[in-house]
Amino acid sequence: MAELQLRPDGRLRHFLSIEGLNQPLLSEVLDTAESFRKAAFQQVRKLPLLRGKTVINLFFEPSTRTRTTFELAARRLSADVVNIDVAASSTTKGETLLDTLRTLEAMHCDLFVVRHGLSGAAHFFAQHAPEGVSVLNAGDGRHSHPTQAMLDLFTIRRHRPDLDRLKVVIVGDILHSRVARSQIHALNLFGVPEIRVVAPATLLPVDVETMGVHIYNDFDAAIDGADVVIMLRLQRERMHGPLLSSKDEYFRRFGLTEKRLARARPNCLVMHPGPMNRGVEIESSIADGAQSVILEQVSNGLAIRMAVMAMALGSRDPGEGKA
Amino acid sequence: MAELQLRPDGRLRHFLSIEGLNQPLLSEVLDTAESFRKAAFQQVRKLPLLRGKTVINLFFEPSTRTRTTFELAARRLSADVVNIDVAASSTTKGETLLDTLRTLEAMHCDLFVVRHGLSGAAHFFAQHAPEGVSVLNAGDGRHSHPTQAMLDLFTIRRHRPDLDRLKVVIVGDILHSRVARSQIHALNLFGVPEIRVVAPATLLPVDVETMGVHIYNDFDAAIDGADVVIMLRLQRERMHGPLLSSKDEYFRRFGLTEKRLARARPNCLVMHPGPMNRGVEIESSIADGAQSVILEQVSNGLAIRMAVMAMALGSRDPGEGKA
Amino acid sequence: MAELQLRPDGRLRHFLSIEGLNQPLLSEVLDTAESFRKAAFQQVRKLPLLRGKTVINLFFEPSTRTRTTFELAARRLSADVVNIDVAASSTTKGETLLDTLRTLEAMHCDLFVVRHGLSGAAHFFAQHAPEGVSVLNAGDGRHSHPTQAMLDLFTIRRHRPDLDRLKVVIVGDILHSRVARSQIHALNLFGVPEIRVVAPATLLPVDVETMGVHIYNDFDAAIDGADVVIMLRLQRERMHGPLLSSKDEYFRRFGLTEKRLARARPNCLVMHPGPMNRGVEIESSIADGAQSVILEQVSNGLAIRMAVMAMALGSRDPGEGKA
Repeated sequence: MAELQLRPDGRLRHFLSIEGLNQPLLSEVLDTAESFRKAAFQQVRKLPLLRGKTVINLFFEPSTRTRTTFELAARRLSADVVNIDVAASSTTKGETLLDTLRTLEAMHCDLFVVRHGLSGAAHFFAQHAPEGVSVLNAGDGRHSHPTQAMLDLFTIRRHRPDLDRLKVVIVGDILHSRVARSQIHALNLFGVPEIRVVAPATLLPVDVETMGVHIYNDFDAAIDGADVVIMLRLQRERMHGPLLSSKDEYFRRFGLTEKRLARARPNCLVMHPGPMNRGVEIESSIADGAQSVILEQVSNGLAIRMAVMAMALGSRDPGEGKA
Repeated sequence: MAELQLRPDGRLRHFLSIEGLNQPLLSEVLDTAESFRKAAFQQVRKLPLLRGKTVINLFFEPSTRTRTTFELAARRLSADVVNIDVAASSTTKGETLLDTLRTLEAMHCDLFVVRHGLSGAAHFFAQHAPEGVSVLNAGDGRHSHPTQAMLDLFTIRRHRPDLDRLKVVIVGDILHSRVARSQIHALNLFGVPEIRVVAPATLLPVDVETMGVHIYNDFDAAIDGADVVIMLRLQRERMHGPLLSSKDEYFRRFGLTEKRLARARPNCLVMHPGPMNRGVEIESSIADGAQSVILEQVSNGLAIRMAVMAMALGSRDPGEGKA
Repeated sequence: MAELQLRPDGRLRHFLSIEGLNQPLLSEVLDTAESFRKAAFQQVRKLPLLRGKTVINLFFEPSTRTRTTFELAARRLSADVVNIDVAASSTTKGETLLDTLRTLEAMHCDLFVVRHGLSGAAHFFAQHAPEGVSVLNAGDGRHSHPTQAMLDLFTIRRHRPDLDRLKVVIVGDILHSRVARSQIHALNLFGVPEIRVVAPATLLPVDVETMGVHIYNDFDAAIDGADVVIMLRLQRERMHGPLLSSKDEYFRRFGLTEKRLARARPNCLVMHPGPMNRGVEIESSIADGAQSVILEQVSNGLAIRMAVMAMALGSRDPGEGKA
């Protein structure tokens, strides 16, 4: 997918998946986000980098957090944003996905942020995007959620720049998680030497061993000496489904408790992409504790999305557009 | 609640309820609204006072009128506005209210406008708001709707500056009305000497006598010599519920008719917070008549919300930011 | 309706229907759209013509395409836009349509874009609009959809300026189509000498012969020598209703196929207002073929809506407001 995501000169055009992108370009995303983090958070001013550009938030799945951060990121860069809730849209009138896309493109917009329940949807959109239009993947099926992976990597790097010495543990429903897939690719690219995944046997993808990770069934063993532990969200519909016995049983075996966290390194970071189920994936005291960087992940998500938008539309330098 | 709503130097930080605020500060709200009324309505230009600020409209209950006026008020002050419809949001995914709030705060927004079905929700949000974030209550359960009370007071003061000589009658479902509670507090603070409430016995709160009002069961007696009559909306679900016999019966006893209005002072103002049920609370000819200031209330709501937003974020003077 | 749509000096105030407007004014709409097309599409910059103005998108029927183009058009002209989804609004609380309108007007907005399921709704709104407020009809019942007709005319004129020599065929559900009604009026006003309509007998309005068109039951005969063929959307609910035998039968008799299109003039334009039902109204290869201007119609819709907005609010010249 490298050819699809990059321009002929190697710059970013679409941001669809970690796979297909190289480490220097992803480092540039992190560095750009760092500069936006300083500029936009501390003085809360708008940057005129995307003035006159139009961003379409095209969400085929509901989402508050992700939609809102993309919307805010676009506005902080002075773009116009139009939200399209596709449940109420023409796809219910029998229009094909491609016709919906082409119709929106014909309105002369610059950037599409796409979330869709089908794996490959953003990729499909990018393949059919005309010149001058970029597509950002805000989550497609079980496949990929690359801005989430980048904000997680960004958060880790800010606390632990020694990425090549870290033990990272990812815990939960790996099978259905586009977040986990993207995280594993990103951590590998940045040379994290040990990635451990912990999940009920029923929630592990069959190909997980090919992804360069170590598989654990026992969370206590996996967290031993860890530098970072990333808890995944357990979807509500999974809690009482055929793949799990009960949510209490899940918490007992895969929940992050004070006792378990004590087995990790002393300053082990605790992460969660949200929204959290307190008492299912994570003990409340840890979610709110000193090692939790969960809210920082949200803030960093804004900076990452600003960075990706600015890079895709060709304007990287926050100093470029002083208001 | 004074400590929560005010900054250490006495300026407004959150606007949660009339209770806890002092008369001089509320007078400042009215005076600021007066200046915005002139600036923004007559020339329809935008004021740059909140440029670069982000306002989140967080509505857990549907509302066209209130949501739209807050949105317009924020835009007229050049803020960015993000609407969040919480029915479709993460709270349905099992996230706690506090986690939703903290997540949104982590996106570096400046002002939250909150409407919620539970009394105390905005107060709860304000208690947990980090430095630099303000919360405005756009209606919480049966408790408070302070911008509505202020726009009503503003409307009355523009027509009748002699507040300390007025007889004001409030009619309808006092029991379930956050509007009535806030109005009574505001009218008391501004020295209105006689506040009369009229309601079916089943729709009067038990503590109403402690609020400094006179209680009437007979609307004809209550409206005698009144300067202002405020009709409350009768919720549809109340019309056929156990608390009322029928809506025709309600109109007969508590509806504002031409005949009844004739008992009030000649220029008695007629007010209603909307949306109106014509023929239930109020006769159509009165709603559209010369004494009605119902649409003026809507306009004034915009000015009041601009004033409260500007004061909470520290920019009071419309002349400050000439475009 | 001329008096309602025009100002005393003959300039446009409301845009409600093609009927009642004169050809020179509609030509001015086309010419203004042409200038916006150049300015806004090629350089993608915002024009400050409507800075400080507020546009309310008031949609009583769902629509992605039309709502989005009006929203984008308003933003490109630097207006503020507030979307109101009326399903979730006060009309469900028993407020009358007129009260909803007056309430919104009291918020000091400048332009209402109204879509409603009842014929005459936009007209009703315009009749009650106060001075300084304009109303644009974005589709009312079966009556009118004038910006769609104008964008179609604009698209035809760009390819075939010799309007007075054209044969135009309109195919499909004429009976329920506000689009067809508006198109026929516009084509007549611009002197198109031959307008042919083709429809199942059950989907033809009884008064169609008075509209200055030729009626055909046989699509093959109608398309013979045509310069433009406009396919109408077949509403899903019609496909299996009492008025049609089946959608396959519909396609066989009224679908645009390669074979049929070969009967038209060599460069016959193919148009569709969208969203398309491929394989029902139109063969896929034609929708995507060289003669299709369907996506151009979407782009042109943006320019037409910008033109109508700018004219209704009194700012016609894109050069006037260089950023």
